[in-house]
Amino acid sequence: MLEPLAHIGRDQETGGYLRDAWSHADLELREWFGGEAARRGLDLREDRNGNLWAWWGSPSPERPGVVTGSHLDSVRQGGAYDGPLGVVSAFAALDLLRERDITPSVPVGVACFTDEEGARFGVPCMGSRLLTGVLSPERALGLTDDDGGTLAEVMKRAGRRPREIGRDEETLAAVGTFVELHVEQGRGLVTEDRPVGVAAAIWPHGRWRFDFRGRADHAGTTRLADRDDPMLPFARMVLAAREAAERLGVVATVGKTRVSPGNANAIPGLVSAWLDARGADERAVRELVAELTATASEVGEESWTPEVGFDPVLRDRLARVIGGDTPAPILPTGAGHDAGILAAAGVPSAMVFVRNPTGVSHSPGEHAEQADCEAGVVALADVLEDLCR
Amino acid sequence: MLEPLAHIGRDQETGGYLRDAWSHADLELREWFGGEAARRGLDLREDRNGNLWAWWGSPSPERPGVVTGSHLDSVRQGGAYDGPLGVVSAFAALDLLRERDITPSVPVGVACFTDEEGARFGVPCMGSRLLTGVLSPERALGLTDDDGGTLAEVMKRAGRRPREIGRDEETLAAVGTFVELHVEQGRGLVTEDRPVGVAAAIWPHGRWRFDFRGRADHAGTTRLADRDDPMLPFARMVLAAREAAERLGVVATVGKTRVSPGNANAIPGLVSAWLDARGADERAVRELVAELTATASEVGEESWTPEVGFDPVLRDRLARVIGGDTPAPILPTGAGHDAGILAAAGVPSAMVFVRNPTGVSHSPGEHAEQADCEAGVVALADVLEDLCR
Repeated sequence: MLEPLAHIGRDQETGGYLRDAWSHADLELREWFGGEAARRGLDLREDRNGNLWAWWGSPSPERPGVVTGSHLDSVRQGGAYDGPLGVVSAFAALDLLRERDITPSVPVGVACFTDEEGARFGVPCMGSRLLTGVLSPERALGLTDDDGGTLAEVMKRAGRRPREIGRDEETLAAVGTFVELHVEQGRGLVTEDRPVGVAAAIWPHGRWRFDFRGRADHAGTTRLADRDDPMLPFARMVLAAREAAERLGVVATVGKTRVSPGNANAIPGLVSAWLDARGADERAVRELVAELTATASEVGEESWTPEVGFDPVLRDRLARVIGGDTPAPILPTGAGHDAGILAAAGVPSAMVFVRNPTGVSHSPGEHAEQADCEAGVVALADVLEDLCR
Repeated sequence: MLEPLAHIGRDQETGGYLRDAWSHADLELREWFGGEAARRGLDLREDRNGNLWAWWGSPSPERPGVVTGSHLDSVRQGGAYDGPLGVVSAFAALDLLRERDITPSVPVGVACFTDEEGARFGVPCMGSRLLTGVLSPERALGLTDDDGGTLAEVMKRAGRRPREIGRDEETLAAVGTFVELHVEQGRGLVTEDRPVGVAAAIWPHGRWRFDFRGRADHAGTTRLADRDDPMLPFARMVLAAREAAERLGVVATVGKTRVSPGNANAIPGLVSAWLDARGADERAVRELVAELTATASEVGEESWTPEVGFDPVLRDRLARVIGGDTPAPILPTGAGHDAGILAAAGVPSAMVFVRNPTGVSHSPGEHAEQADCEAGVVALADVLEDLCR
């Protein structure tokens, strides 16, 4: 089902995807989105924050639409499904509504949010955070990528207007309800033996940058006793994070580091490490970060998302529409999503999950069976039909 | 004394130097070397491996010369003295010989070796290793830099002929004796309260790449029990290396790492770490590496240099020439040098050290006092005068 996108931003060697926001691959994916909208006679709009909207019908504040979609960017060396499955399924569900000769009572939109993964600038859900105003334009524009380019520079190079980013009332007002379909990032549906489920809530989660400062020096001539090597407290933090996560019943990950200056024959002067921590219990997550803070020279919070419980009425309605007599399973998730950002901003939102046989995600091994993807499209079409009645 | 070079490859923000081999900065440093040779009427040659030679007189296999010099490249964010002090002092010592109206009985050369630090391709002393044949052209040409460029490509871009690199009998035969002046990378001369000393031996040292393989996965949705996170064994290796180094009386450093794919919100699939280990006792260094090997998925030796004892007759002669009645101190060193590579290849070689008040090296804080640098030049001129008599 994702075949038309399979070649874009794919690392031939690993099979993983490199689809940073505003990269060449991202611009190609945006073109594909525009083409799909045009093929269906939908009205294509790009909002001030770079999010894409393809409308069937014209939404207004008085007659907001039902929107479905997800994102097209990826983590580095990510899988094919995280994001694209939601966008491709959105177009396919819309096609199904038309095949069923449904005339929706409200406009129906397909959305593609910008930079959901935060792979390039470190802040996930950038497009929806800017749209809803939880991320300030000032902070966003100053964020830098690995090459030192700011968001402002990167957007300008992509032909966008960075000075116009920020909370966008008009675009938000057009979204009456948002439903995001996503590949499950865990094995809950495998356990339940069901192809499709509905999200209960998104765990509170955050990202912190830990800086360990030492003194750069020669690797051969500096006695051990004279060293101030930041690699050691960093290593202790990695092990302490796992120990504390086990004890506190949360998850903690160090997936990105930067060692400066990074010479094999020199003691580093600075090690920076990014800690990702999440859990059902916000206090436990906070406790873990507080414990680890003492190990570092400096700790900065890069993002924090409190628990997001999706609208329970909407959630239960989806579970019944999808599952019928045996409502679809309702699953918690440790992953952040644009649907969570919109829900927190007061937009009635929900998520539909498609079974992931291995549970693997953010990796080339991420996968969903064709039959389950098709069941996802049918479920999404049923939900849209129900919501547009 | 290093003022004319101070601006080349300097990071304005940190004050550290970025002088990778064959970088723009390196090419500028080579131009400076050529200018210094021309100003003195010296005969400039670049050998097939990119090493520079400025000759006063014409060496031949029957009448080899006395050569002094060092290198101009730096570790990343390195100091001003490591390398350049030896080259600048070489030209200054030659000037001093001429001021003294010395007519040397053999040719005198100033040398600048290519890529001594190995910052770009991971192999230190590349120029002297290729010259003496201890590094094969095949292996060298296949080495890659951080951008994936091979040495072959990089040399070609710099207008050189990579196919011609390799052992160079003719160039080697011209070097009768080699004396390298270098800033001390430790505080031995501070302890001895002397501005200048002589090298005893270079510790055996090596560099190994440790690969820790795991399974890339989602940082939020993968249960701790289901994880195969390579960051954990890597962290344990860092701590084990320090513990073993203390126990075995050697030094061990992890100054460079690579985390793949490097997403803050994903468990990494691979962590690579470079271990630098050195010590007076080769068996202890080998023992440390053997102990740590069990922690990793794969360990590869990137370089190994056995102990190099400098020619004792030459060494003692230098100590007497420099120190007079109270011979200059003779100091061991944990750092590798081109002089060590030449010595191992059978070229009578020696090193002169200039006092480093803090002992700091491979860092912007690296320093030597002006008076000590001047004492170094006088000592070097005395040594050349003695050797050319």
